[in-house]
Amino acid sequence: MICFASARDFETALATLAEASADARNDALVRQGELTKPAGSLGRLEEIAVFFAGWQGRARPRIDRARAAIFAGNHGVTVHGVSAFPPSVTAQMVANFSGGGAAINTLSAAAGLELTVVALDLDRPTADFAAGAAMSETECLDALNRGAAVVDADLDLLTLGEMGIGNSTVAAALCARSFAGAVPGWVGPGTGIDGHGVARKIEVIERALAFHADAPRSAFETLRRVGGREIAAIAGAILRARQLGVPVLLDGFICTSAIAPLAAENPAIVTHCIAGHCSAEPGHKRLLALLGLDPLLSLGMRLGEGSGAAVAANIIRSALAAHDGMATFAEAAVSGSL
Amino acid sequence: MICFASARDFETALATLAEASADARNDALVRQGELTKPAGSLGRLEEIAVFFAGWQGRARPRIDRARAAIFAGNHGVTVHGVSAFPPSVTAQMVANFSGGGAAINTLSAAAGLELTVVALDLDRPTADFAAGAAMSETECLDALNRGAAVVDADLDLLTLGEMGIGNSTVAAALCARSFAGAVPGWVGPGTGIDGHGVARKIEVIERALAFHADAPRSAFETLRRVGGREIAAIAGAILRARQLGVPVLLDGFICTSAIAPLAAENPAIVTHCIAGHCSAEPGHKRLLALLGLDPLLSLGMRLGEGSGAAVAANIIRSALAAHDGMATFAEAAVSGSL
Repeated sequence: MICFASARDFETALATLAEASADARNDALVRQGELTKPAGSLGRLEEIAVFFAGWQGRARPRIDRARAAIFAGNHGVTVHGVSAFPPSVTAQMVANFSGGGAAINTLSAAAGLELTVVALDLDRPTADFAAGAAMSETECLDALNRGAAVVDADLDLLTLGEMGIGNSTVAAALCARSFAGAVPGWVGPGTGIDGHGVARKIEVIERALAFHADAPRSAFETLRRVGGREIAAIAGAILRARQLGVPVLLDGFICTSAIAPLAAENPAIVTHCIAGHCSAEPGHKRLLALLGLDPLLSLGMRLGEGSGAAVAANIIRSALAAHDGMATFAEAAVSGSL
Repeated sequence: MICFASARDFETALATLAEASADARNDALVRQGELTKPAGSLGRLEEIAVFFAGWQGRARPRIDRARAAIFAGNHGVTVHGVSAFPPSVTAQMVANFSGGGAAINTLSAAAGLELTVVALDLDRPTADFAAGAAMSETECLDALNRGAAVVDADLDLLTLGEMGIGNSTVAAALCARSFAGAVPGWVGPGTGIDGHGVARKIEVIERALAFHADAPRSAFETLRRVGGREIAAIAGAILRARQLGVPVLLDGFICTSAIAPLAAENPAIVTHCIAGHCSAEPGHKRLLALLGLDPLLSLGMRLGEGSGAAVAANIIRSALAAHDGMATFAEAAVSGSL
């Protein structure tokens, strides 16, 4: 399925975002005020229920069908020794996903999520972005559309994640190009590289930013030049989910970095997204703050694979269960609504 | 069932706590190091798996049977106008639990928890602790044993919670008597009382502490004098769970206050407990810090009813699902264990 026919098509979609239903939000707020509890006492769970009401367009939102979509890609930038693992691990982990043995298999099953894994041309890594664009226009558009393709209109929730050796370097480059600020603040140990590796990550990103400094600043060009296939796919999925009114649960630093170039162009792109967790990767906290997203969980996770989002999906289910299943003060004959 | 035959029996149990299985913990740690992920990348989820391994005494812990136990009680201290709701709401909410319409009904169902509600003599509130002991020895012992009675030996997890108009005042009194520090730091709005109400709470607690200042400082005497039935029941359940090796998930400020007098006497009582969340009630954060407990969630919840613990139970399930279900590097033929 071709959702975005051209770079321009993608940019137009990003510029013309649909909004949540104000009526459904208001109806959900009224219902929250009638449920048998002191007003506001379920905290963030109440906000989640109202958020889902708005995007699902119904006062009592549900999660009947939810998908965890995980995208995998390989990166030319790994030639610079930016990861503690060899690029061959990306395909090995995709095989592990297929075999059911990875963290996301167990965590998506525990949260009742259909798992969809999309491996994007793992045998054709992106080009080294320190010396050229990571992807051609055609390649980037293909990745965006393959991301968009996982978003079925009847999904009640989409959680996102990624796997790709070297992609914490890609994520840092996307953040540094999308937002002001020095590169070191975006760079961390990723899956566990040492101090020398971190220094190499910083150096290669600074070279890449200098190389692409004069290129157009559009979301598409930033994704194409310093992004990667799995991250562009996540960006495509996020934008497509917005078109279809499907709420999105983001994972960690790399997953969230996909939205950085989009948010730099149109900050409203984040309003159908919830941050599932705050990763231990140091750039994530900074990125979430810039995007105005308050993470549901902070459990020191830093795996990727959509693992944090999958755990957070349980919070969404709890929030909607309370909103839909609780009695009102009138129904329960409890006195003293505050 | 009489678990604690006397106050002395309770104190002896508190002084002679069983420990977790070091072997099972070690086996779980070894397994964590073999699973297909960078070491430590599941953060807190890994710690939870090792914690449950130790208390369940098996390298691959499971949640086959979990119970949410909610205790309700009424409090003589409400005569001082310390709550925004009338005491009659306690029984109304217990009826709401029975009817399935309360938050905890929906949240325990969403987390796969058997819900057990124990209403403790709601028509006989405790005495006003500002002018006497809240309970007789017999009454306190009965409450401890009714709490202990909900802990079946085959439970894999016990989550705890409470309902009782006025009991945030009781919780603050328990904390203030158990730990050093001025009363105002333990007092907050509870279910939503205004500034004048907060001032009344502080004043009545200060009077109570002065009244009981010369009484013995044992856990039992503190529970009996400034506690309440539902809170003593929680204390009994916590201690009984320790005897049976059942891990405990604590809820908010009032639930956690039940452990304060026990921890003041034997700090090791907390080691089979996990803090489910940090409540919006200001004393809770302080109490968790004093107990050395790091909450799993911080979602601005302040309802009680075990609601935060029930939501957190989903995190436990996710942690154990990953620990038990993931493939090892050897099984999945993934290279590069760090």
